[in-house]
Amino acid sequence: MAPPTAQAGGKQGKAPVVPLTNGITVTKEANFSQWYQEVVTKCELVDYYTEISGFYILRPSSMYIWNTIRTWFQKEIEKLGVEETSFPMFLSSKSLEKEKEHVEGFAPELAWVTKAGDKDLEVPVAVRPTSEAVMYPYYAKWIRSHRDLPFRLNQWNSVVRWEAKQTTPFLRAREFLWQEGHTAHLTEELAAKEVLEILDLYATVYEELLAVPVVRGNALGQNFSKMFDITVEDPNQKGEKLFVWQNSWGLSTRVIGVMVMIHGDNKGLVLPPRVSKIQVVIISVGITAKTSAEVRENLGKQVEELENSLNGAGVRVEVDNREGYTPGFKFADWEMKGVPLRLEFGPKDAANSVVSYSRRDTGAKGTIPVAEIASQVPALLETIQKDMYNKANEYFTSHRLVLNDWAEVVPALDARNVVLIPFCGEPSCEDQIKDKTKSDKHRELGPDGKPQPSMGMKSLCIPFDQPSGLVQNETKCLNPGCGRFAKSWVMFGRSY
Amino acid sequence: MAPPTAQAGGKQGKAPVVPLTNGITVTKEANFSQWYQEVVTKCELVDYYTEISGFYILRPSSMYIWNTIRTWFQKEIEKLGVEETSFPMFLSSKSLEKEKEHVEGFAPELAWVTKAGDKDLEVPVAVRPTSEAVMYPYYAKWIRSHRDLPFRLNQWNSVVRWEAKQTTPFLRAREFLWQEGHTAHLTEELAAKEVLEILDLYATVYEELLAVPVVRGNALGQNFSKMFDITVEDPNQKGEKLFVWQNSWGLSTRVIGVMVMIHGDNKGLVLPPRVSKIQVVIISVGITAKTSAEVRENLGKQVEELENSLNGAGVRVEVDNREGYTPGFKFADWEMKGVPLRLEFGPKDAANSVVSYSRRDTGAKGTIPVAEIASQVPALLETIQKDMYNKANEYFTSHRLVLNDWAEVVPALDARNVVLIPFCGEPSCEDQIKDKTKSDKHRELGPDGKPQPSMGMKSLCIPFDQPSGLVQNETKCLNPGCGRFAKSWVMFGRSY
Repeated sequence: MAPPTAQAGGKQGKAPVVPLTNGITVTKEANFSQWYQEVVTKCELVDYYTEISGFYILRPSSMYIWNTIRTWFQKEIEKLGVEETSFPMFLSSKSLEKEKEHVEGFAPELAWVTKAGDKDLEVPVAVRPTSEAVMYPYYAKWIRSHRDLPFRLNQWNSVVRWEAKQTTPFLRAREFLWQEGHTAHLTEELAAKEVLEILDLYATVYEELLAVPVVRGNALGQNFSKMFDITVEDPNQKGEKLFVWQNSWGLSTRVIGVMVMIHGDNKGLVLPPRVSKIQVVIISVGITAKTSAEVRENLGKQVEELENSLNGAGVRVEVDNREGYTPGFKFADWEMKGVPLRLEFGPKDAANSVVSYSRRDTGAKGTIPVAEIASQVPALLETIQKDMYNKANEYFTSHRLVLNDWAEVVPALDARNVVLIPFCGEPSCEDQIKDKTKSDKHRELGPDGKPQPSMGMKSLCIPFDQPSGLVQNETKCLNPGCGRFAKSWVMFGRSY
Repeated sequence: MAPPTAQAGGKQGKAPVVPLTNGITVTKEANFSQWYQEVVTKCELVDYYTEISGFYILRPSSMYIWNTIRTWFQKEIEKLGVEETSFPMFLSSKSLEKEKEHVEGFAPELAWVTKAGDKDLEVPVAVRPTSEAVMYPYYAKWIRSHRDLPFRLNQWNSVVRWEAKQTTPFLRAREFLWQEGHTAHLTEELAAKEVLEILDLYATVYEELLAVPVVRGNALGQNFSKMFDITVEDPNQKGEKLFVWQNSWGLSTRVIGVMVMIHGDNKGLVLPPRVSKIQVVIISVGITAKTSAEVRENLGKQVEELENSLNGAGVRVEVDNREGYTPGFKFADWEMKGVPLRLEFGPKDAANSVVSYSRRDTGAKGTIPVAEIASQVPALLETIQKDMYNKANEYFTSHRLVLNDWAEVVPALDARNVVLIPFCGEPSCEDQIKDKTKSDKHRELGPDGKPQPSMGMKSLCIPFDQPSGLVQNETKCLNPGCGRFAKSWVMFGRSY
């Protein structure tokens, strides 16, 4: 029986679990949901905002991850010609009416400001759940000619969606940080080209920064420009108006939650070196009551030299000098917090001119000559980054099943796989599929610690990389109640 | 008679004013307030958010300025050990009660969310006007020992203050971007040291990035830690609790408005090169109906080479290739938008292997050998940056009067000066001073285009650099109705 894990992947700890004092008190296997909550709070990624439920405080180590993503992504979209903007956080009920179709889904989650001070507002305003309704009236004003296209703006902000469902840090919060890009193009082709470029950037964020593999797949529309009457003159036919093709794309702090779920283990967080605020922690070891003051002082100096040398090599390093704590306590504390590499330095290491290391991801141990740390430590951090990706990728690949038999679908889902099936693409068929794949064999524990019935599966994406064996106008949709021809292989999975 | 200008400084255009089509239609001297509104909108720094009054859209060129400030400041506070955080945008009425004293001033400006979807919230929540009430309960939780000090967090976000007063882009908006740093220290000395460090960084933002001179002066308190019971154990006396010393410091997009007021002239915006999204615009000139296709093509190629060469030198350059516009129109357009340096290139320039330039700040013109643009243009941009600072500084210095005679105060203010006077430091005395310095001799035009009576003067700061002549326990406060001894020279001015 496969252990429970995160959607579409996850990592299984094999080591026996010894809960630490103040450490993570449950295993990922036994109670995933409690495990996750303990990891994100005890490892100081977030704190719960107890004043208002569904809101979370992002602490420095998660802001470090987000800012690493932000800095990288911002540079990339600047190269594409996307400019930065900042629109107000409120939208009036008037704009909402114009954008009814789009906003309808958000209506139950809108936070309404009805008073300023002790005065009622004449017209209530809602906090943006996303900014189409805020921005598009200005696109209609600013885009006057095909020479104004492509027109591309992005903003980094927070949005509010007053979720009624159970909230979880990063994964579902009533306020979250994100970037939202809103662009307009002259042709569908140009808009589609941008979608691929942006998807590729998002995939790179996951793969290169967070060490999380992704399956590349597809979405796109011309809805908003019709609603807001954003037109340009057709450059090929004078006097003819064209609706522009618009894209919206957003990446949120949700990715941090996905990363935690994928890499974390029963000791706590495991952070990929590229996004870890602290990459290396140095801990002095082997000092006893008998150690002379001279030896102590000497060790202290050498640790300082190690720190300087690593800083000079661009490594984000912290020395744990806390008094009154054993090395063992410190080891466990930094392991829980997910710091990728621990360096230990004691009298024995000094005598051999080496530092001892321990990798967070694999637990592997070894030594590095002191003279070589400025080159070997950065190299080892890169190895850790790549190994974390490869490990997650192997898990993903082995848990992604290509199925041609409907009878295999539910057992595959119960065993924590995602599935690729021939699918017709019809929403009504997807509704049927969702209904048919509910299960109570699934062992996920809920927040109450009791097993929960699982949800039905949802379509995740149409992978660009299609398995073979699907013949157009011949292969049927796998849903036995459907009967239509399949358009493509589609990836389905349960979300937790 | 001195022309009207911005508070504590401003720049006077001497050239005759020829309003351009679509350009700025009033002079800075004739109607400062309308001039400002036209500059910020026509130069595309902001657009008015017509859906909800008092809100503005920050467009790419103002976001460029803000991000330049943000990137620089963020790096500096990281060096000081300040970490980044992100707290929720809402505060509950419960936290507000705890922080009553501080929030009272904001109470009339709080935006209250009372509904989510169509359901009334059990407890209304307010959008943060600033985050002390949001953050400090967590400081009380996280700061447990003197080893946790200094404790320093900063966040970049937007805050909402539903101003009843007339709003103005950047200077007074109902929502604005800022950074808010909130830190806790063990001793008053350490807190005071930080204040000086942060003030120095703010001064550097003004002086080095925005080319705006500032007078360095003072503020500080231990109020919040008492309210929120943020204590640590006194490291010198076991068992004794100490309240920590806290600082709050913020820099907002208001600085952009100040910069616009100081440097702008009757042609429009004048941007300091270091914060200008476009530093150099290249415009082809001298092309007539007679110009051969070959010459045109050749010029085009050479312009492209100029562009590449400047890009390679790290200059932010734009080529204005718009067809159907005369060079004259383009000159005026980019001048209005404040681009620091214009390069012109035509057949005559090509023949002499030079480019012609025109400085936005002074209007000075000249030529640069094509072979030297990669070194001479960056150098010229730095010269423009420094000259803009020096010009503003000369204006400031000549309009800052040290006064020992109360009778001179109001005339000095009416003539657009700020004043330094011996002052006792008592709030009640400042109230008297404010009342006594109101005037109707002042010629500022209001939004209705009519002269407005001016406000009384307010204390601006206690300059670190104190004029001589003030003897403690001897020199009296300059307010004739006061009679107390003066504590220091204090700078006063009217704000507009």
